[in-house]
Amino acid sequence: MDIVAGNLGRRNFLRTGLGGAALSLSSCSPLEPARRGEGGTPAAPEFAAFSQVVDLTHTYSNRFTHWAGGTARVELETVSSTANGDGWNVTRWTLDEHAGTHIDSPFHRNPNGLTADKIPPRDLVLPLAIIDIRKKAEENEDAQVTIEDLRAWEDAHGPLPDRCCVAMLSGWDARVEKPGFINFDDKGIRHFPGFHTDAAIFMLEERTVLSMAVDTASLDYGPTKNFPVHTAWLGSGRWGIENLANLADLPPAGATLVCGAPKIEGATGGHSRILALL
Amino acid sequence: MDIVAGNLGRRNFLRTGLGGAALSLSSCSPLEPARRGEGGTPAAPEFAAFSQVVDLTHTYSNRFTHWAGGTARVELETVSSTANGDGWNVTRWTLDEHAGTHIDSPFHRNPNGLTADKIPPRDLVLPLAIIDIRKKAEENEDAQVTIEDLRAWEDAHGPLPDRCCVAMLSGWDARVEKPGFINFDDKGIRHFPGFHTDAAIFMLEERTVLSMAVDTASLDYGPTKNFPVHTAWLGSGRWGIENLANLADLPPAGATLVCGAPKIEGATGGHSRILALL
Repeated sequence: MDIVAGNLGRRNFLRTGLGGAALSLSSCSPLEPARRGEGGTPAAPEFAAFSQVVDLTHTYSNRFTHWAGGTARVELETVSSTANGDGWNVTRWTLDEHAGTHIDSPFHRNPNGLTADKIPPRDLVLPLAIIDIRKKAEENEDAQVTIEDLRAWEDAHGPLPDRCCVAMLSGWDARVEKPGFINFDDKGIRHFPGFHTDAAIFMLEERTVLSMAVDTASLDYGPTKNFPVHTAWLGSGRWGIENLANLADLPPAGATLVCGAPKIEGATGGHSRILALL
Repeated sequence: MDIVAGNLGRRNFLRTGLGGAALSLSSCSPLEPARRGEGGTPAAPEFAAFSQVVDLTHTYSNRFTHWAGGTARVELETVSSTANGDGWNVTRWTLDEHAGTHIDSPFHRNPNGLTADKIPPRDLVLPLAIIDIRKKAEENEDAQVTIEDLRAWEDAHGPLPDRCCVAMLSGWDARVEKPGFINFDDKGIRHFPGFHTDAAIFMLEERTVLSMAVDTASLDYGPTKNFPVHTAWLGSGRWGIENLANLADLPPAGATLVCGAPKIEGATGGHSRILALL
């Protein structure tokens, strides 16, 4: 357990991928103090006073565009209904886990990673840094968040905060429930923005970023073949958020993200209410 | 729509119950400024800086004690699994809606009330007032939060904050996943603490309380016959939280509750990640 995200070199990631270094990380938070040793532990942030709440969650229904194609399975079976003369409205849900606004827990990609219910609660409340790539995403559907984009954010707002969530704002949330959201081409290749692998590795090696988020369907951009961002990020014990909404309603720096991760035993991620405080 | 919670007399509630006044409230938040008129609108709270996160959510699994008896249906069907040689862990959930730590949306009891996905996001972040009735709950399994308990809290901490959540701390969360949680007697009557109807009506008529929460399985106490607290509270357009955990880890005043209500179209409530900020 002496191998932690901060000490795990890029070469290790690229060499060992899912089967190697990723597997040496198990049931600990990636930035857990006990795992970092003295001097290397980012302090728990002090969060500022706030007065606004912005909802970053899409409504989840069977119209939601699924990454794999088609729409998500979201069924609410009626258990009792006032429309039928009962005193109560009650349903039973059947939900696809990885569609709608949802998290990927480390276990989604890493067999030894944490399931959603085991993510430490304090890791669910994070300073939010928003990387606005709307301009280049308009010109290139396969745009990616690069190290240069991260450095441009830092030039404007200072270093990425300790234990923060870095979110990609591509403008893609406007396409939700439309074919252009997954955006298959004639050859069945997807086209939408995501994080570049180099940026992901920069965030976990050079900074103490705890979560990454996208307003598209995947942390990796559409045309990816091997999902290196998922492999590196979830493999390091970190978690991510996909299909975020309304990031454009927030400033690039200063908001706090609260992740309502499901506390369902064994969940590999899943539907999460994501709120921003400002 | 001129009948709003603040103007709805107790006699009306008791006379008309679910079928009357409750039905006149539909798709508005109970304290929506436009519905209150000038001078009657509590300002949106300013929330203080914070540095701690406390998880008020029980882990949800098929061991969770269900209000109706037995345990909840919580099934995670394997879609893909690294244990089977797949590159990903993915499941599909089937979940009982009203078990585990969950919310009751107004629609759960009120056919014209809001479903969970429609509750305004700013109503999901609330000052938290905790009413500690552990002592009387130890002596009486059918203990209730009374107006006197609310006034005792106010004597110590000042008026209940505008737009707050009032939570009952009975200590019952220690019984979860045990028969004593629902606590049926030989006649099939349940015995656990809840809110007294008078206290619920005080909270919505005399104060601007927005949500109520319990660490037991029901807003109404165990032996209830007609669920007057559910009827009054959800009927007024308000929502509630059941099966909270860890309230004893918080001070009676000063914390902020963030409700990760499900944003699932048509949900009558359901599994919610509830976090407290302090």
